[in-house]
Amino acid sequence: MMPISDRLIYNKRVFTRSARASDKDGIERKETVMAGQKNKVTIFDVAKASGVSSSAVSYALNNKPGVSEATRAKVLKVAKGLGWRPNGAAQALARANTSRIGVVLAQEARLLSAEPYMMELLAGLGAELEQHDYSMLLRFAIGRDNEVVILKDWIATGNVDALLLVNLEMDDPRVALLNEYPEMPALALCDPSLSGGLPVMRSLDMQAVTKAVSYLHDLGHERIGRVGGPESFGHSYIRDAAFSDAAAELGVRYRCLHADYTPKGGIEATKRLLSVNPRPTAIIYDNDVMAMAGMGIAREMGFDIPGDLSIMAWDDSFMCTAVFPHLTVMGRDIVGSGHRAAQLLLKLVDGEQVGVADEYPYELRERASTGPAPASVEQR
Amino acid sequence: MMPISDRLIYNKRVFTRSARASDKDGIERKETVMAGQKNKVTIFDVAKASGVSSSAVSYALNNKPGVSEATRAKVLKVAKGLGWRPNGAAQALARANTSRIGVVLAQEARLLSAEPYMMELLAGLGAELEQHDYSMLLRFAIGRDNEVVILKDWIATGNVDALLLVNLEMDDPRVALLNEYPEMPALALCDPSLSGGLPVMRSLDMQAVTKAVSYLHDLGHERIGRVGGPESFGHSYIRDAAFSDAAAELGVRYRCLHADYTPKGGIEATKRLLSVNPRPTAIIYDNDVMAMAGMGIAREMGFDIPGDLSIMAWDDSFMCTAVFPHLTVMGRDIVGSGHRAAQLLLKLVDGEQVGVADEYPYELRERASTGPAPASVEQR
Repeated sequence: MMPISDRLIYNKRVFTRSARASDKDGIERKETVMAGQKNKVTIFDVAKASGVSSSAVSYALNNKPGVSEATRAKVLKVAKGLGWRPNGAAQALARANTSRIGVVLAQEARLLSAEPYMMELLAGLGAELEQHDYSMLLRFAIGRDNEVVILKDWIATGNVDALLLVNLEMDDPRVALLNEYPEMPALALCDPSLSGGLPVMRSLDMQAVTKAVSYLHDLGHERIGRVGGPESFGHSYIRDAAFSDAAAELGVRYRCLHADYTPKGGIEATKRLLSVNPRPTAIIYDNDVMAMAGMGIAREMGFDIPGDLSIMAWDDSFMCTAVFPHLTVMGRDIVGSGHRAAQLLLKLVDGEQVGVADEYPYELRERASTGPAPASVEQR
Repeated sequence: MMPISDRLIYNKRVFTRSARASDKDGIERKETVMAGQKNKVTIFDVAKASGVSSSAVSYALNNKPGVSEATRAKVLKVAKGLGWRPNGAAQALARANTSRIGVVLAQEARLLSAEPYMMELLAGLGAELEQHDYSMLLRFAIGRDNEVVILKDWIATGNVDALLLVNLEMDDPRVALLNEYPEMPALALCDPSLSGGLPVMRSLDMQAVTKAVSYLHDLGHERIGRVGGPESFGHSYIRDAAFSDAAAELGVRYRCLHADYTPKGGIEATKRLLSVNPRPTAIIYDNDVMAMAGMGIAREMGFDIPGDLSIMAWDDSFMCTAVFPHLTVMGRDIVGSGHRAAQLLLKLVDGEQVGVADEYPYELRERASTGPAPASVEQR
């Protein structure tokens, strides 16, 4: 359990604001602001001040088993000293119904905007939330540690009704955190094998991978390359495993490099895959941005698409039918999945069980960028 | 002034939640929730109940001139009856420092995801806000009316510290609303001519348009086409005017069609522009998605790019260097402008003046999709 950062509960801006309140009700406002802050003392503060874990504080304050009587007495004393109030007006207001769903994005800003997936998901999520008068509280974290700090803040302050967890990594610290605080509903977008028992909406990647590899195998491709997403992402790992298995089953030689979803990453990985003799006759990309860039550089290198090399993308944004040849893709309704995620989150808010739900399934959308394997393979 | 919707202040979910609170503190929680609701009576409720405008209520309750004594007395009586409390704990908490900036997006979900601009802007905004412990409260409105309702809700409940207004239209109702409630700081991303005096961050479109037209004119292009964004958007209008003026000044024949930023819109407009004899020898697009699609369909129609036709895009997402030939663009640092918008919003929250600030300027990034005008022009 990481110690909670000091910055969570108090920040300078509050003081700045009350200090500059110079209108005629200035003094009164300052007082109520200070009262507001007092209400923001959380179990994390109590934990820090009493030197025990926040879960121990939770047990102690909620009069539940799990801590010694000595610890309980100590915690209660510290909590009282700090002015912690379990049913203060602030907490009641905050916890009762914020009508907010929290989402933290931890990808770098420029990378996020290169990825149509996330905007499609958020757009679907937001459109559905709007039907229920819910807002999305959005943070752009600076790395994983910061993401966990934000989540702890939300748990402590009851700033959101539920959380959506995206881009789960293997052994993700968010899973452990949310399991420790079951009072904060959370939906993880990942394979159930990664969620540590949290409710999930899973993408049906395994069956999609099998379909994609079979499709290319049926076109005569015996050497298939792949440019995957970042290796630390859980869904990259799931796809890696599925590709290995599907290729082994069909006797296809499978080579994979991982990149970062950007055109640059796609271009570099494509050049590397095509530099080794014998080269693959088809390449599948983990997103459409890398596929578009990979197709572009392959054509620059003199490969005819799909005569010499078939190109296939994952996900199906507008780009895939704006480039020529149009990209064959494993597509799915990401906006629709955003809607579905919102529905599941609102179920969790209402105390309903979710367990394991499915995203919209993938479908193979065959376009002009794939074709039969070339009879002979030459390097370029 | 539109009447405020009933749905704003009370919603069913609160009752659902308190009704299902069956744990041991259930009764207590229900009571605090009800208290919380009472605090949410707003000037809009008072206005509705007393049959006067919300600005009149504001004047009356804040003891300011602008209403008759009879109206003031009536408003005070109604407000008291409804339990309105100007300095209640809830309002103090809400108004003191929400650490939230509100953004309402009113574009259709699938369209939003086709537009890298918005995700880049949000990513920059969010990354900067994160440095200041601020969150983004995001709504996806269903049309303009719904957008105004959401803004009124935020003004009434103090749910955000400040607002960012994007995609301003001509005679935009949001401008009138925010001018009516100066206590809610707002920054409009638009030309100052559209903001009705609100603080703005303007994009430097006029000088960019002049630069783009001059560039093509210098390459010998005498007939320039343009595929603009939706005509109702303020920045489309500003660009339309700038293109007309720049073309007139240089003696260039300028033809413009408007589309909806999607590949489909870009493809259709491109086909139309190329169908009229004599056709343009260069086309400029208001976003990169339409430019990519327009270049694709032009090549499908048999035009060599840039031999027969030069293509130029506005904004410069990753796509522009992932297609071949790479797209010449009028680019700007959108992520950087998102950062700047956040800084301006936080200034407004701190009570500082902003006035008219500039986005990052455009720069011409010359790539392979533009070249000298063809010697002769044939239809295809």
